[in-house]
Amino acid sequence: MASEWWCAWRNFCLALIQLHVSAAKSENLRRACGLVREASAKGAKVVALPECFNSPYGTQYFKEYAEKIPGESTQKLSEVAKECSIYLVGGSIPEEEGGKLYNTCAVFGPDGAMLAKHRKVHLFDINVPGKIQFKESETLSPGNSFSMFDTRCQLLIYPGAFNLTTGPAHWELLQRGRAVDNQVYVAAVSPARDEKASYVAWGHSTVVNPWGEVIAKAGAEETVLYTDIDLKKLAEIRQQIPILSQKRCDLYGTEMKKLKWKRMRGSQSSLFFPSSEQPQIRTESSTAERFHQNLFLYMSERDT
Amino acid sequence: MASEWWCAWRNFCLALIQLHVSAAKSENLRRACGLVREASAKGAKVVALPECFNSPYGTQYFKEYAEKIPGESTQKLSEVAKECSIYLVGGSIPEEEGGKLYNTCAVFGPDGAMLAKHRKVHLFDINVPGKIQFKESETLSPGNSFSMFDTRCQLLIYPGAFNLTTGPAHWELLQRGRAVDNQVYVAAVSPARDEKASYVAWGHSTVVNPWGEVIAKAGAEETVLYTDIDLKKLAEIRQQIPILSQKRCDLYGTEMKKLKWKRMRGSQSSLFFPSSEQPQIRTESSTAERFHQNLFLYMSERDT
Repeated sequence: MASEWWCAWRNFCLALIQLHVSAAKSENLRRACGLVREASAKGAKVVALPECFNSPYGTQYFKEYAEKIPGESTQKLSEVAKECSIYLVGGSIPEEEGGKLYNTCAVFGPDGAMLAKHRKVHLFDINVPGKIQFKESETLSPGNSFSMFDTRCQLLIYPGAFNLTTGPAHWELLQRGRAVDNQVYVAAVSPARDEKASYVAWGHSTVVNPWGEVIAKAGAEETVLYTDIDLKKLAEIRQQIPILSQKRCDLYGTEMKKLKWKRMRGSQSSLFFPSSEQPQIRTESSTAERFHQNLFLYMSERDT
Repeated sequence: MASEWWCAWRNFCLALIQLHVSAAKSENLRRACGLVREASAKGAKVVALPECFNSPYGTQYFKEYAEKIPGESTQKLSEVAKECSIYLVGGSIPEEEGGKLYNTCAVFGPDGAMLAKHRKVHLFDINVPGKIQFKESETLSPGNSFSMFDTRCQLLIYPGAFNLTTGPAHWELLQRGRAVDNQVYVAAVSPARDEKASYVAWGHSTVVNPWGEVIAKAGAEETVLYTDIDLKKLAEIRQQIPILSQKRCDLYGTEMKKLKWKRMRGSQSSLFFPSSEQPQIRTESSTAERFHQNLFLYMSERDT
């Protein structure tokens, strides 16, 4: 299903929704779904929402806004994905399960099935005196599994909420670095900047091509960023500098411990979902190789 | 010895010698050693030469210019390191052994001992139609071991010869990426640009701090680039965004296969020498952790 859908495509339109996130959850959901419909109407086949799109981003909010998955927010995402017949990378929401809170991303296919659910593995703590102090680990628990869904595409998508300290320093750099290291497209989708929020997101949702060039970049305000993804260009770059074939699998490898495969209800694909920290790691196993052959969904685990 | 020397230092001066490489090997050696002496006189404690500093960079030259190690060129490097009492990262030279050619970097300590010898593990092939075509693998053989020397410093040094295609696209980006990924200083030392050479090097030797900021950058011409390396700043950044302590060793690891420890004659240190491809990989073993706690010497294996 999913893979056939992709196989037919050499180019497709990606839309990143740089949502203005307010304190009103129902309003956030309504606006998000409206912009998804708008993006679909304009031809986007893959649409992504930002990190923490239904709740303000702050440890003091997570408990109040947290939901079960499936729950209200993911149900709405599933419905709009099916209605528009698109892939929808559902940013992230605070998730509650067993008394613990997680920062969780759910992905939906064109039939509305949940393709993957990824809990942020590396929580974001930062303390730059005089600039920013923030500790996700105060209230959130980390996820413990990698996950990915199979679409035969070469694109990493990071829903992320960087701030005014790490944003100008690292937001674009990390995306360009991951793109060149892996010879893939990288897209990062941020909430719109809200100067009145307790955590001010950087904005500037961005798409980078496999040569490391920024090919689309939003401002700080609410917007939908459209980009045509050219997979032929990616194939060309991999041929021009053949780093994949020059790997020295005889000398090193990457070991996945406790790798859990998740087979999701309603999906015909084998799903796993990687955490983000080492997208540049390639290993020789066919499983891990797929990390680089497919559409990744990463949380921005390095920092936000 | 070496480690005590470093332990006393919080800051030290690094000098990158962006050498103009000519077709005359003896002249290259004479100029290189002269600039090393000049850098030492100005206070540099660690001095680095560029990739392929004693020979033009081109597959047609490697056989003619190749030497044994130890041999004429490395003997001169050893002598000048001892004379100046510095650490000298000897860029690279074409090395011949057993009928095979390698792209090899030798490092010397303040007593003139060879601390490490690293053969480039990933040879550089590129073919961007209309721009550049180059295949190291036509004549060179790859090295098969990782190596590092222990100095308790947090600095990656890449002797590298990027070109006018990859230089503007990736030279600075890769350095900044590695610096932020690993929270280390990164220095890359290039030959000076020679428009008449068959392979035109990019130049622009660069030093990046652990926040990803370029703190020193040369032009394209021959020059020595001096930079004060502040290890206290590095410790601060690691505290501000504690990615090292947030590693999930329970979920992933890096596997080194056939890791060879080299104990070099004349050195009191345990030496190993990493290849460059995955400086961003951290693993939980104390051995591999040292990759990030020490002075690395990397060849620019990703591309040149």
